[in-house]
Amino acid sequence: MEVQRLIDAVLDRIFVEMEASGRHIHLTQAQSQVLFGHCLTAKRPLSQPGQYLANERLTLKGPKGEFQNVAVLGPERKQAQVEISLTDGKTLGIAPPVRLSGDVAGSPGATLIGPMGQVKLTQGVIAAQRHIHITPEKAALFGVQDKQTVKLQTFTGRPVLFEDVAVRVSDEFDTFVHLDYDEANACGWKPGDLGRIIL
Amino acid sequence: MEVQRLIDAVLDRIFVEMEASGRHIHLTQAQSQVLFGHCLTAKRPLSQPGQYLANERLTLKGPKGEFQNVAVLGPERKQAQVEISLTDGKTLGIAPPVRLSGDVAGSPGATLIGPMGQVKLTQGVIAAQRHIHITPEKAALFGVQDKQTVKLQTFTGRPVLFEDVAVRVSDEFDTFVHLDYDEANACGWKPGDLGRIIL
Repeated sequence: MEVQRLIDAVLDRIFVEMEASGRHIHLTQAQSQVLFGHCLTAKRPLSQPGQYLANERLTLKGPKGEFQNVAVLGPERKQAQVEISLTDGKTLGIAPPVRLSGDVAGSPGATLIGPMGQVKLTQGVIAAQRHIHITPEKAALFGVQDKQTVKLQTFTGRPVLFEDVAVRVSDEFDTFVHLDYDEANACGWKPGDLGRIIL
Repeated sequence: MEVQRLIDAVLDRIFVEMEASGRHIHLTQAQSQVLFGHCLTAKRPLSQPGQYLANERLTLKGPKGEFQNVAVLGPERKQAQVEISLTDGKTLGIAPPVRLSGDVAGSPGATLIGPMGQVKLTQGVIAAQRHIHITPEKAALFGVQDKQTVKLQTFTGRPVLFEDVAVRVSDEFDTFVHLDYDEANACGWKPGDLGRIIL
């Protein structure tokens, strides 16, 4: 359909697709060994190239509560990181700081329980700052740069303009906005919904 | 402190205080009798005059899960209403429509479990549309009218501009913005945080 391709091309130059990230865990290889007795295995790929949802799942435990069957994302990283929403934090009894991925210094810990063992993290629990993964081409098109923040207008059931949305430019990324489920539900997000970057 | 009173008076003409509403239940008198064997009793008053948090608590049950110890607000009303966030709905296995309080026609039901009995609601579960309770004086000051929607800029840890915020003018109300916890957490709300109405 020539018309549909034209429409898609136009939309692609105006909007960015939004995804919601549920609570999930990143592990080191050593931690995977302790928890599962082996390294992570891929169940299905995620939108970011090379990243995958693992077959393996964990129980995530805090001082006040726990979540079972929590998603683990692979491949393994150099340090563990647990990404939860502030609502999840209330259930667990953990108050995560709002941080960019990788910035875990001084954040609270939690206990991870797997079929083969447990790992007690002394830090690593954060609420991911809302962010846009964007390719260099798209960044140039929208006039944004790595590490800046922008506003994002959502075209969703409960429309919102999110401020302080971090921009992360890399040619290893596909272009997607990532929200947590507090944010996704606050704006009435459904899969495939679009947002517009506001400078 | 004369200066502090002046500052408060100025802030009061620019901003509106924001409150977050956790999941809660409104009952009829007949339902209170079935669930507790008596009418609701007041534990503490809420910000809206005449409204109170009851001493009585309920288990709220859906097809997929339940919450125990859920707040019940009094006094009793002419129809039951259960207000939850979309995140709560995921836990319960209920997809509540986003509605104004009182507009429950065709909404999903849930089971309420009290110490003396159970009530199966056939409808009444909603996610409250974000709204501003406002006095006629404040409505005139801010130039807003009953039933219109406005935008609300939040001065919070994760700033957001909420669109589609319903305005409810009544001289029975004090002036407060009411958000659910998805919205409160999405904007990093803390008690006492302020918002600004944008027309």
